[in-house]
Amino acid sequence: MSYPPSLQAVVDELGRFPGVGPKSAQRIAFWLMRQPTEDVRRLSQSLDDMKENLSFCERCCNFAESGGLCPICADDRRDQTTICVVESPPDVVAVERSRAFHGTYHVLHGLLSPLEGVTPDRLRIQELLTRLHGPVKEVILCFNANLEGDATAMYLGRLLQVPGLVVSQPANGLPVGGDLEFADDLTLSRAITGRRVLAD
Amino acid sequence: MSYPPSLQAVVDELGRFPGVGPKSAQRIAFWLMRQPTEDVRRLSQSLDDMKENLSFCERCCNFAESGGLCPICADDRRDQTTICVVESPPDVVAVERSRAFHGTYHVLHGLLSPLEGVTPDRLRIQELLTRLHGPVKEVILCFNANLEGDATAMYLGRLLQVPGLVVSQPANGLPVGGDLEFADDLTLSRAITGRRVLAD
Repeated sequence: MSYPPSLQAVVDELGRFPGVGPKSAQRIAFWLMRQPTEDVRRLSQSLDDMKENLSFCERCCNFAESGGLCPICADDRRDQTTICVVESPPDVVAVERSRAFHGTYHVLHGLLSPLEGVTPDRLRIQELLTRLHGPVKEVILCFNANLEGDATAMYLGRLLQVPGLVVSQPANGLPVGGDLEFADDLTLSRAITGRRVLAD
Repeated sequence: MSYPPSLQAVVDELGRFPGVGPKSAQRIAFWLMRQPTEDVRRLSQSLDDMKENLSFCERCCNFAESGGLCPICADDRRDQTTICVVESPPDVVAVERSRAFHGTYHVLHGLLSPLEGVTPDRLRIQELLTRLHGPVKEVILCFNANLEGDATAMYLGRLLQVPGLVVSQPANGLPVGGDLEFADDLTLSRAITGRRVLAD
């Protein structure tokens, strides 16, 4: 004896979610069964809406509603000569929050990771290279400071050796409000190597 | 700047799932965006189907497809005089797998837990009491051997003090294939207290 087919179908679909195992899928399915029908209909409707209305910006590959360009690429006031390359859409939100960047973005949708089978052709690198034919003067490689981030930055750094194009990375260093005593060795070493001159 | 509304709607809906936090909801939503449209449509369709076709058995409160009775309650060959009371539908599947029980079930959809606000009126206890007007001779209280399970068994044990009705619980003891050395004190104590006589 097993579950009724219509319940099993939901358990199977939920079990495909990243980070959701069979046990969690079952718990979520039971929880959904106990929710009002209109709540579950709202969920399924939101899924259909998302797939229908949301696509990827044809320039920067970030999410864009109703096709074409995303709000940032479509904004004439943004500096089209500078591209900040990031791993994923949340990074765009994070950099926007910093209010320190007024150029455009490019979302790779991943970082290079040979061990997990993420090779350059799995990322939106070709789309980035196409953009270099435009008025681009600087590309900022803004990735997490880990193995995958460094590997992707190194790969792109070599690939983007184009005359007249500046390729940069954000500074590594002590986080603002961070405690010197608790900084890890690598962060402290990079902070000291990249020290700023206050008076000369 | 935040996410497009149709993406945010999905993140919000997924974030309501039990055991799924805002970060996981975001990861799942991004993953769904990368899936083929027909896969996501199949998921939303399965949710709608489940809410439409699946309901609760009007006798045992387990899941039942297309209304009325579940397959077990509808099966004339099952012993209608014995009811195995369990916490949730997976427990029915587990007991069925044991092939040791041929009666019917009653699913409470929870266990008593005053700390988490689960009081008797939140469980399907009234439906169980209604069933006692039928030809029921024995009720087996088959709950997890923890605080909530013991509390629920104790509560129901008192409630079911009806002349001619046997209320029982499965034996506690050493799991088959288990190692005596690694059995916890309570299990071992219950196994010895409930020892079986082999020869007399």
